[in-house]
Amino acid sequence: MFTIDHLGIAVKSLAAAKGIYEKLGLSVSAEEVVEAEQVRLVMVPVGESRLELLEPTSENSAIAKFIAKQGEGLHHISLRVPDLAAAVERLKKDGVRLVSEEIKVGAGGHRYVFVHPSSAGGVLLELVEAEG
Amino acid sequence: MFTIDHLGIAVKSLAAAKGIYEKLGLSVSAEEVVEAEQVRLVMVPVGESRLELLEPTSENSAIAKFIAKQGEGLHHISLRVPDLAAAVERLKKDGVRLVSEEIKVGAGGHRYVFVHPSSAGGVLLELVEAEG
Repeated sequence: MFTIDHLGIAVKSLAAAKGIYEKLGLSVSAEEVVEAEQVRLVMVPVGESRLELLEPTSENSAIAKFIAKQGEGLHHISLRVPDLAAAVERLKKDGVRLVSEEIKVGAGGHRYVFVHPSSAGGVLLELVEAEG
Repeated sequence: MFTIDHLGIAVKSLAAAKGIYEKLGLSVSAEEVVEAEQVRLVMVPVGESRLELLEPTSENSAIAKFIAKQGEGLHHISLRVPDLAAAVERLKKDGVRLVSEEIKVGAGGHRYVFVHPSSAGGVLLELVEAEG
């Protein structure tokens, strides 16, 4: 089944950005640093999805560069898709532009690929393998 | 219960932008024109949420102005919240910046308010009343 896995939101300050969600009564995770991506993040579960607020820990982080170029805001939308390998084959055959041609394996073993914004209405679209 | 109601995505061309979702095997609604907002839209249900692709029908549409200013991409995130009036009271008391101070009633009778991006990590955040 397709679901929205998460929305990645690039922010300058986790402390400032998470306030709105706490005030709404949502639960916000503890801060966590992901060294490989040079970000500090909190997760905000919302129904079957979650918001990921991403604050850069270094100027060289992709999130820092994103903010420098276009300011704070949505960085990517992540969709869970039922059969990732088949979906990627189909997209390639149809000429959809992917950020990289191969499925990558991230932290925790999740498999993912990014569709280039030029093929997705200006949105950086991550596809991740749905479980089960 | 909190859920992501929808993501509003501003695009230049519905025909081009909806292709990726059709290719993934998601169902895409028929096109619908919303005269009041000067947009043509399709909806893509994804789990408990949906993506709304919004194409301007006039240069004066807020979506046309958005695209002219910052290009295609995410326009707003809409969250369903359990008690909208209480949430809005709490946010106002806490100094959160809202786009308008009062809850508005949209097409189909849904009640909503927008939180200004400056109070939500650069994201235009719509809050809508959860049903039931």
